[in-house]
Amino acid sequence: MSEENIVYIGNKPVMNYVLAVVTQMNGGVSEVVLKARGRAISRAVDVAEIVKNRFITDAKVGSIKISTEEILNNEGSNTNVSAIEIQLSKDATSTWILKSFWY
Amino acid sequence: MSEENIVYIGNKPVMNYVLAVVTQMNGGVSEVVLKARGRAISRAVDVAEIVKNRFITDAKVGSIKISTEEILNNEGSNTNVSAIEIQLSKDATSTWILKSFWY
Repeated sequence: MSEENIVYIGNKPVMNYVLAVVTQMNGGVSEVVLKARGRAISRAVDVAEIVKNRFITDAKVGSIKISTEEILNNEGSNTNVSAIEIQLSKDATSTWILKSFWY
Repeated sequence: MSEENIVYIGNKPVMNYVLAVVTQMNGGVSEVVLKARGRAISRAVDVAEIVKNRFITDAKVGSIKISTEEILNNEGSNTNVSAIEIQLSKDATSTWILKSFWY
């Protein structure tokens, strides 16, 4: 059974989010979804690329979805903001086999 | 036969790129690929969403790919930068039928 965990990407340094994703995946979560809005969208792409290229090399980028969300701004009216969802997954079985073999 | 045109998204106002995509699609191009790097990534998502929601409502977002590119920075060394490719397409046949019907 695949678990799905969501990491919301905001304005903190990119490595904070990378660490959150890596910690989850090493803890046995097989699928993490990165969600971001507005300017944080490019940071979400950075997080996905850094996790995949530097930390969890068997992680794969699954489906990427973009959408428009309505948010309430400071003046009390609605504005549209773009959003992205990036699915990151790795083969859960291989982790499980490795774990049961080594420990 | 589907044609593929590329629109590179940079730091200009978002509507400049929206206009470029809309002009191409109304001119008969059935598929446009938006490419962006670094902070322009969120602008590329904005362009795709605005084209689809406000101007060409039968346009669909196809595959979205993310990657890492190496670029030469000002100091002469290489840095990594994230990149995105967003495929926007509309049914070419329907446009063609409409055109031959009306003109």
